[in-house]
Amino acid sequence: MKVTNASRLRIALIPPLWARVAPSTMGGVEFIVHLLADELVKRGHDVTIFTSSDSTTGARVVPLTECNLIEAMERGRAWEYEYYETCNIAEALQTSGSFDVVHFHVGCYAIPLGALSRSPVLHTLHNPITPDAIWLLERYVEAPVTAVSHSQIAGIPDQRRSRIQVIHNGCDFGAQAFSPAPGKYLAFLGRMGPGKSPHDAIRIAKQSGLPLVLAGQPLDQEEHAYFAEQVQPLIDGRHVIHIGAVDQRQKNSFLREAAALLFPIEAEEAFGMVMIEAMACGTPVVALRRSSVQEVVDVGKTGFYADSLEELVPLVHRSLALDRSVVREHARQRFSHVRMVDEYLETYRALPHREWSGGAALISRSAP
Amino acid sequence: MKVTNASRLRIALIPPLWARVAPSTMGGVEFIVHLLADELVKRGHDVTIFTSSDSTTGARVVPLTECNLIEAMERGRAWEYEYYETCNIAEALQTSGSFDVVHFHVGCYAIPLGALSRSPVLHTLHNPITPDAIWLLERYVEAPVTAVSHSQIAGIPDQRRSRIQVIHNGCDFGAQAFSPAPGKYLAFLGRMGPGKSPHDAIRIAKQSGLPLVLAGQPLDQEEHAYFAEQVQPLIDGRHVIHIGAVDQRQKNSFLREAAALLFPIEAEEAFGMVMIEAMACGTPVVALRRSSVQEVVDVGKTGFYADSLEELVPLVHRSLALDRSVVREHARQRFSHVRMVDEYLETYRALPHREWSGGAALISRSAP
Repeated sequence: MKVTNASRLRIALIPPLWARVAPSTMGGVEFIVHLLADELVKRGHDVTIFTSSDSTTGARVVPLTECNLIEAMERGRAWEYEYYETCNIAEALQTSGSFDVVHFHVGCYAIPLGALSRSPVLHTLHNPITPDAIWLLERYVEAPVTAVSHSQIAGIPDQRRSRIQVIHNGCDFGAQAFSPAPGKYLAFLGRMGPGKSPHDAIRIAKQSGLPLVLAGQPLDQEEHAYFAEQVQPLIDGRHVIHIGAVDQRQKNSFLREAAALLFPIEAEEAFGMVMIEAMACGTPVVALRRSSVQEVVDVGKTGFYADSLEELVPLVHRSLALDRSVVREHARQRFSHVRMVDEYLETYRALPHREWSGGAALISRSAP
Repeated sequence: MKVTNASRLRIALIPPLWARVAPSTMGGVEFIVHLLADELVKRGHDVTIFTSSDSTTGARVVPLTECNLIEAMERGRAWEYEYYETCNIAEALQTSGSFDVVHFHVGCYAIPLGALSRSPVLHTLHNPITPDAIWLLERYVEAPVTAVSHSQIAGIPDQRRSRIQVIHNGCDFGAQAFSPAPGKYLAFLGRMGPGKSPHDAIRIAKQSGLPLVLAGQPLDQEEHAYFAEQVQPLIDGRHVIHIGAVDQRQKNSFLREAAALLFPIEAEEAFGMVMIEAMACGTPVVALRRSSVQEVVDVGKTGFYADSLEELVPLVHRSLALDRSVVREHARQRFSHVRMVDEYLETYRALPHREWSGGAALISRSAP
């Protein structure tokens, strides 16, 4: 696509401050913002990210702090996250007149503040929707909002939900090496917490007669207790292996060399990036039908899903027969970051022009 | 004072949302905002409070929610406080063009957002200053800020501290009935937590040979444990009596009928309202020299203070000899809400005029 000057947009991106914006980052949202930013820059747009100065991106960085907040808190240099996030949002708004679009990735929290922008704003919701978030969405019924899956917004009353556009996440297929030959183990990747259900992955693997390799670790106290009690005793180093945390490079080879990804998730998850990262390597997904699973997995093409663990066991074997190049190519059509960025750009260009009158005089709001 | 039209100010007040703004409220900050608002209204100003609709005030209320957040959370109708506070701040800012002054009472948190106001803003800090708050104060070096005591801001580096004005809290002396005759018990009033040190009050009272009446209750789990272990065993119903929580009316008679107020506080406290509420009834204060104590207590006039508990015992007896009408009159000069409102009004009128340019282009900010 030839970018003409006329179509060049000045775009501000405001991610959370927990993690840095980089190709390899601890933050799921920060990773999506990294993909979005670099692809927008590649297409000739002028992109500014309000984040910490340890970020690595082709976009311009307006740094709030020297390092991401997780590290700053670990080093005893910051305590209350909200102070920093609010400051970051405020400073993006202070310069909002210099942008064509101000794109927030911090959740419903920012919606009332977005009404103070001099330029069109977009809010992308990356996390499960809470009752407080619904309250804000219904109070600001006209605020432009996108979600990352249909299941994420299923709990929002119809009238408001119908105004929310869904843009599925994407991943960079060029950065995910493909393997045409199926691997010899089943893979589980995620936090070692009850919500992600690694204990169920172990159960399925045992019944399938295939070895399981678990990647990821428990993070908080509850997860450590769960892991010690329900997962650790089942790890035998032969049929059930635990390799701990993996970085971005290790993750790719771990997923690429797997026969299938098990995704027996029980908790609410807005999207489920690991599913499309597996598909991008050619590895099919076998999942419980929860949250976004039936939007992401195409039965018989990129994997299988079912409503109970028992039904998953035969599906594991069926998934091994899928053509891995079809898995990848089909997933690429639906979940490449190129498609994701196309959709965000289209949304940016369709945002209602905002006549600046000093705030939300023009933002209609429902009565309290 | 005759209020002319020219001097009539349109003032927006933004308190926290935890408690309602009312003559009798659970919230210390909300109580000060109530006093400020009603006195400003009495003087002919046009006052708007952004709060919950259960508030009781002579000012106009722009209601965010039907009830205060403590109640809303107890009823399972709200969960994350920050969503509501940020929304309240944002909505005050959305209409900031209709005010002459926008006066925030929510702490440093709001400073970067205040830079988006179309009208002059003032931030009053009501709580102890945290390192995150100092970070924000130094980032927004020109933001107009007031504190409630000098001790509260002692930890802020000189250059920034010197720009912060101190306006001591006040109370409504007309609403506090006075007793010229000294009472027969020592009084302690406050949360039954280790920071307020009721166990030390008991120790002082025992050594003084005077009975002690404790008002207040433990609130969180830590305080309940502390109370059960260190206070409850010392309550004998004769020399040490516990009457639990008191409402505004009960508080006045409780303080009025006391011989002296014991204030052996160990925790950081920004001001210490109970000291001036006692003085307003004619009851002297005997306190440990911590936090704001030496700014509030005038030795030999409204009470006494010392650096150790041992030194307080003889001071209890000296305090009984103070003339209670002098205690009240001296305190009235320094801590009436009339004086407090005079000072806020003077500060409002001295606020730098803000040329609106769409945000903080005019707010100088130090580099990160």
